[in-house]
Formats: sequence, structure tokens, C-alpha cells
Amino acid sequence: MVYFDAASGEQLDPAGREAYLAALAEGWAGPDRLYREGRSARMLLDAAREATAEVLGCRADELVFTGSGTSAAHQGVLGLAKGRARAGRTLVASAVEHSSVLHAAELAAARNGGETVPAPVDVHGRVRVDSLAELLGAAPVGFVAVQSANHEVGTRQPLTEVAELAAGHGVPLLVDAAVSLGREPVPAGWSVLAGSARKWGGPAGVGVLAVRKGTRFAADWPEDERERGWSPGPPNVPAILAAATALRARSAQAQEVGLAHRELTALLRARIPELVPDVEVVGDPEDRVPHIVTFSCLYASGEALLLELDRAGFAVSSGSSCTASTLTPSHVLEAMGVLSQGNIRVSLPWDARAEDVQRFLAVLPDAVRAARPEPDRDPEPEPAAPGPETVVVDALGRLCPLPVIELGKRIGGVPVGAVLRVLADDPAARLDIPAWCRMTGQDFLGDEPLGPGSAEAARAYLVKRTH
Amino acid sequence: MVYFDAASGEQLDPAGREAYLAALAEGWAGPDRLYREGRSARMLLDAAREATAEVLGCRADELVFTGSGTSAAHQGVLGLAKGRARAGRTLVASAVEHSSVLHAAELAAARNGGETVPAPVDVHGRVRVDSLAELLGAAPVGFVAVQSANHEVGTRQPLTEVAELAAGHGVPLLVDAAVSLGREPVPAGWSVLAGSARKWGGPAGVGVLAVRKGTRFAADWPEDERERGWSPGPPNVPAILAAATALRARSAQAQEVGLAHRELTALLRARIPELVPDVEVVGDPEDRVPHIVTFSCLYASGEALLLELDRAGFAVSSGSSCTASTLTPSHVLEAMGVLSQGNIRVSLPWDARAEDVQRFLAVLPDAVRAARPEPDRDPEPEPAAPGPETVVVDALGRLCPLPVIELGKRIGGVPVGAVLRVLADDPAARLDIPAWCRMTGQDFLGDEPLGPGSAEAARAYLVKRTH
Repeated sequence: MVYFDAASGEQLDPAGREAYLAALAEGWAGPDRLYREGRSARMLLDAAREATAEVLGCRADELVFTGSGTSAAHQGVLGLAKGRARAGRTLVASAVEHSSVLHAAELAAARNGGETVPAPVDVHGRVRVDSLAELLGAAPVGFVAVQSANHEVGTRQPLTEVAELAAGHGVPLLVDAAVSLGREPVPAGWSVLAGSARKWGGPAGVGVLAVRKGTRFAADWPEDERERGWSPGPPNVPAILAAATALRARSAQAQEVGLAHRELTALLRARIPELVPDVEVVGDPEDRVPHIVTFSCLYASGEALLLELDRAGFAVSSGSSCTASTLTPSHVLEAMGVLSQGNIRVSLPWDARAEDVQRFLAVLPDAVRAARPEPDRDPEPEPAAPGPETVVVDALGRLCPLPVIELGKRIGGVPVGAVLRVLADDPAARLDIPAWCRMTGQDFLGDEPLGPGSAEAARAYLVKRTH
Repeated sequence: MVYFDAASGEQLDPAGREAYLAALAEGWAGPDRLYREGRSARMLLDAAREATAEVLGCRADELVFTGSGTSAAHQGVLGLAKGRARAGRTLVASAVEHSSVLHAAELAAARNGGETVPAPVDVHGRVRVDSLAELLGAAPVGFVAVQSANHEVGTRQPLTEVAELAAGHGVPLLVDAAVSLGREPVPAGWSVLAGSARKWGGPAGVGVLAVRKGTRFAADWPEDERERGWSPGPPNVPAILAAATALRARSAQAQEVGLAHRELTALLRARIPELVPDVEVVGDPEDRVPHIVTFSCLYASGEALLLELDRAGFAVSSGSSCTASTLTPSHVLEAMGVLSQGNIRVSLPWDARAEDVQRFLAVLPDAVRAARPEPDRDPEPEPAAPGPETVVVDALGRLCPLPVIELGKRIGGVPVGAVLRVLADDPAARLDIPAWCRMTGQDFLGDEPLGPGSAEAARAYLVKRTH
């Protein structure tokens, strides 16, 4: 089995595992205790904090450990929002932040009587600095949240420009660096930084939260004196030591491993469109983290594709609606306005091997073929009324990728210049019908709600045949 | 080194350690993932949930895992308070609950515009059911929180009566069972149950939170679909499996180990007052968990005593003010109204040995002697005005145990019937001066604030010499 879902979490690094086992013997007691075992745990905790702070580029007393990367993001957002509530209640976050940041910002805004405003991104998923500037000028802002790089498509965010802009407005910048910690240096300029040890080969159950001296930050959780009051609960010393050890080990090799991964992902980006028809590789082709590649396959079901790849021995993830419990496509792909069906994210673990990438390319075409529904046995597309009047394609109740497949089947039956009115209530159609038009060269004229009596997501999509 | 601080957290149980290592290989991936590693992690998580639910006496779908025992208590309190905010905004908690429960209740009350009301306890730390009944009759109550047993003195709480009382008022009962899970069965009747794996020999970083079907419970944290929305962040499968394994292993032996520990703690309770002068053993002598004994030593500094015992090879904890970063005595000892100086809690780990308990008894008298300040070289106590007028003992600025030592030195210099007015600003004096009077047979007449211009905690304590 080849694991290509490193961006979800990696297996514990061997150096981290060894540190964990050592700390189970030497650092298991409470580091706030006065007896020998407590003092020993305190020394290990201090050492882990120093080592981690050095990699993050902050002081040890600016850094606390949390119970997970999710907690680090939640506490970073809630603490900064509360600390800054007097200065500004509008919270600005890029539309492609991790859901932990977005959900925490929504709660913080609700608690403080403010609102969250998403900052739009370009087609690669990069936040638009000009839009951010407008948002910062429009209302008193509590904070700006922009990740180091996107977790689904790998695009790096323009943090240096964003930090300058935020500083110019006197607004703190919160950076979720979960994607890049241990892989790439974090650009300076943040006020609050959050990360997750699982994503750098540390154990589950450890997050990092750094708050720059001078940042207004106020606990929005029950009082607890440990970890400066920023992270309730006892610090898990063995896991923290394992996390720090893995981070240090990786940081030392990060440049070399990054170069190798960049070559492998560049190969995937180049070869996939050659090997698979009707595929869209998304995310910035150059300015991106080295280990992530994402692509979407027209007409394919993301879930079927995941299972085909699993059968072929590859573990990957998907942002397609059919793989989410909510049955909506990834909010990242949605903000970018790219195809969401048959979506696959390949993210390379630290020890990824070139031969496994080659083998992935070898199995991918068959997997995609199997994940695309069989063409209908009907020899001819359903005849449609010839002439300029609109033809209705009713795909209500049919899930991704079926509305697009239906559309593809029916467009051949209408004359050039005719308009198809596709009725669909799968939320993924909002992304996938325009993407289909872009990829096949047909004209997308827009969409409209179906009106009262129909499901909330039910819309009519107008597509004009151009060739 | 002998570790007698199990109630703070135990070293990882060998069976739990083995399970953790196995799950690092088989259960490290995200249990929400569709590929093989994800399915394998899901199976392990499901098995851990089933096994834990069985010990807790609940259904698997009533149980989630949190990032720590502290988180379980926080989320239990915040979720129940929010779910019940319409029914009642007064939150009742026993005065001796763990600080994680009390702090979360304070925050929940502040958020919901209500208040927390402490339910008083008797001198053993047992909640007064009659007082609880009054509180439940006085206002619409959101919940009642009563622990299974007290974490500092071991006294079991009357949960069966409390549960009946709460049910009679239609008010849910929240039980923090951290002290007893894995050691004793949890009485039925709870609506929300919280616990901590570290306290039963599981790893750090795992808490359990059970919410009975039908309980109104509402997330008061950022949206996250994992663990039913009750615990944000990815479940840490290896640690959860280790926790469940340790809990199962312990539950099977709990009765036998409990009997052995009960004998050892009964021995400590009986022998300590024989071996050490001026000592008060606290907590219920009979109706208590088997592994905890707590006592306080008049005239001794808790911190000095901890360090003496550490030097003699024993790790224990203390509720004395001098061992707390806040310099206030434990709120548990305060609610009980017992001596707080020279306080020591001995809590036996699972594998405690009788010979270590014997050795503890052997080293304790010397350790207490060393922790009591040397008597003054002055051959005679300072002469005081003979006669009925009040003599002032100025102990302002002197920390525990010095005000009581000063009092003990001076009382011999006044005639029987005279009153000493002890001025002290150490918060521990509130507990320790009345306790000293009780233990030495002198008369405590009361205390009064020193008035404007003096420190907040500064009071005058009136003591009448009776013999």
C-alpha cells in the first residue's frame, strides 16, 4: 500500500517514535510537579519548546502546545478575536482557509457580535491582495487569517505582501501554517501562528500555537493556568517531545526532500493530462508547496475513483462532493471556481519514492476509466427539437457526476446555437457545469434558482452549444 | 523512586503501551478516510469505543473521545449548559469539584447570563444533599455537577441520592468520574459523564465524554463533524486504543486491587497520627475510594514537606498554599474547613507495593520534623501584658505556616482567658488558625477584616486561651 495522503497526516516519524518511547519513561509525570519525575518532565518540555520555537522563528515564551492542530487553530482564532474585539469585530479570512479556521472565525464573530468576511482567491486558490486591501479599508478588522499554503491544492499564499498590508492597517495576521511546517520556512510577519504535528510526522494529539509578544490575545475558554492560559489541560510531554524531535529532524532535511518532491509533483502535473482525457490539474503550477498535486476528472465520481485507487494500492484524498458527509464539494475548489468532480489530491509523505509515483501514473488511467460511468447503450442521443428554442435537461435528484454526463450526452442532439437548460439540485453542479463548459469549449450563460417549491440547491444552468 | 501521586496521572499501563505501539502501525491514519488505512483505523476506533462504553455502562453512540480529561470536563460542562440554557441558567456544582469543572461552569454561566452556585460539603468533603435540595428548589437549574469521588481527599459522593434528587427536579446530573474510572464502578443516574485516561493508566491526551441519549447538549465550540460534533479535532486512534486497553485491563482486576489498596490506605490513616504529632488525617475514613489518603501537619510547610519526601524517594502532592502558584490553599480543603498547612496527598498507583507504604511510614516522621521550622532559640516566650486585655500578634506579611507557629509561641505567654488578636494576610490563615484552635483545644472566637488601607486578605483572628 502506498500512502499519498500526507497532507491529512503522516505516520509517526521514526525519530519521533523513539523520542516518544524515551519520554514515556522519563517525561510521563506532570511537569508542574515539584518531585523528581515532575522536574524531569519539565526539562523535556522546556527542551521541546526551545527546539520547536527555533524552527518556527519565535521565542520559547511565545509558544504553547495544544491538544491537536485543530485546537491550535481554534484557540488561535478565538483568542485573537477576543483580544481584538474592541479594535475590530470584522474577521477577514481567505475563502480557502482550512475549515477549522473558518468555523472558529464564525463562532468568534457570533460571540463578539461581528461578522466574518471571506477574502476571494484567484483560480489557483491564491488570495487576492487587492481585495484584501479593500476589505481592510472598509471596516475595523479584528484580524486577517491567511494560511501559509493551501492544504488542498498546494498553492502558496503571498504572505509577505499580506503581512505588509495588515501591518499597514495595524491589523494582526493569523497564519495557519499546518501545510508547510517542517517542509518550508514560514515567512515572517505573523502575529499568531498555528500548526499540527501530525502533518510533519509528529504524533497525533499535538498542535503548536505561537502568539507574538505584544499581540492582544485573550482566552475564550475555561481558566487554566497551564501553557500560559492559552491551552487548557496538561501538556502531553511524551507526545510533545516526539513532535519536536520529528520537526527538528525534518527541518534539517527539508530543502533536499523538497527539491525531490517538487520534481515528482511536477512530473505528475505534466503527465496526468497526457494520460487521462478530460482532466483539470489545479493549483499554481510553480508557486506551491512541493508535496501536493490536485486534479479533477470530468465525468468521474470522486468516491469511485478513491476506491479504484485504493484497490490499486494507493491512498489519496478527494474534495468531490460525493466523498464528503455533507455532499457538498470542497469549499476550496468552490472558491477557486474549478471542476470538483472526480477530484483527487496526491500529497507525498516524507519518504515518498519515485517508483511509486511512476506506478501511480501507470494505474491512474484505468482507475479513472473505471470511475466514469459506462456510456449508455443508446446508439443515438435522445432526439431533441431542432431549432433555436431551449431544450430542457432534467437532472434533478441526480448526483455528481451525472448531471454533467447527461449534459454531455444531450448537447450533441441540439443544433449549434441552441441553449440547453440543465435542471440540477446537486450543489456540485454549480462548479461542475461551468467547468465542463470551459473544458469542452461550450458557452456557459449563467444559472438561476428554480424558485419556490423546489429544493434549495435546485437551479437551472444555461449552456449554449457553440460548435 | 516511589510514585505515590497516581491521582495526578499514572504512568502508561504496559498493556496500553503495547496497544499504542500496535495502533501506530495499524491505526495511524484518519478514521474518516475511505482507503484501507483509514478503514483499519476506523475499526480500531470502533472497537475502543465499544470496550470503553461497556466499562462506563453506556452505549457506544453515547461516548466520544476528547483530547484530554480537562477537555472532557470542559466540553461536558459547556455543552450541557448551552443545551439547557432555556431550562435553567443557574449551574450548581459541589464546592469540591475539580477546578476544570468549576472554571468551565463559571465561563458557561457568564456566556449564558446565569450564575454558578457552589453546593456546600461536610467536613469530609461530601456534598450536603439537603443543601442541594434547597438549591434545586430555589431557581431553575441548568445542571447539577457532582464528582464520583473527591480527587484530593478520596471521599465518595452520594451519587445515588444526588441522581434521584436531580431526576426529581428534571435536572441533568454531570458526573466527573476521573478519580474512580477504572477503579470503581460508576453509579447510574448521570446524564453527562467525564473522565481522563491518564488517571486509569492510559496515555496522556485522551479524555472520555459520555452524553446520555435524550440529554439536551449543544456544542459551544467551533463546528466540527468528527466525534458527533462533541469533540473537535481528529480522534487520536493509537492513544484512544491504548486508553481503552488499559481501562479494560484494570476494570477486570479493579475489585482485587481495590481491596489491597484499601488495606494500605487504612494502615496509613491509622499509623500517621501515631507517628507524627499534630497531624490531621482528612476525608471520610470509610466511604472513600481505595487509593487516596490525605493529611495535614500543623506547623509544617507543604512545599518543604514535598521536597523532604522527594529527597527520601517519594513523589506525592500537596494542597497547601505554598505549593500553589496562586499561593492560596486548595479550594477543596477550604470548602471542608480543615487544616491546609503541611498538606500531603498520597495516591497509590495500580502497582503500589506494601513495602513501599511501610517505608513511607518509616521516613515520614523525619520528613515532617525537617519541614517544621526550628523552634526559636529564645528561652522564654516574649512576655505579654498580664491581664484580660487583648494581645496583638502581628503576622502580617508572613506566609503559612508562620502565623500559626507565631500564635503557638505566644499563647503560652498570656493568662488563661486572655484573647490573642492575630493579624495575618496569608489566605491560608483563614483555614489554619481555626484548625489550630480545634487541634490544640483553644477557643476560636472569629475573624474580621482589617479594613481600608490593608491587603485584601488581611484579617484579625481572635483566639482565646482556654487552658
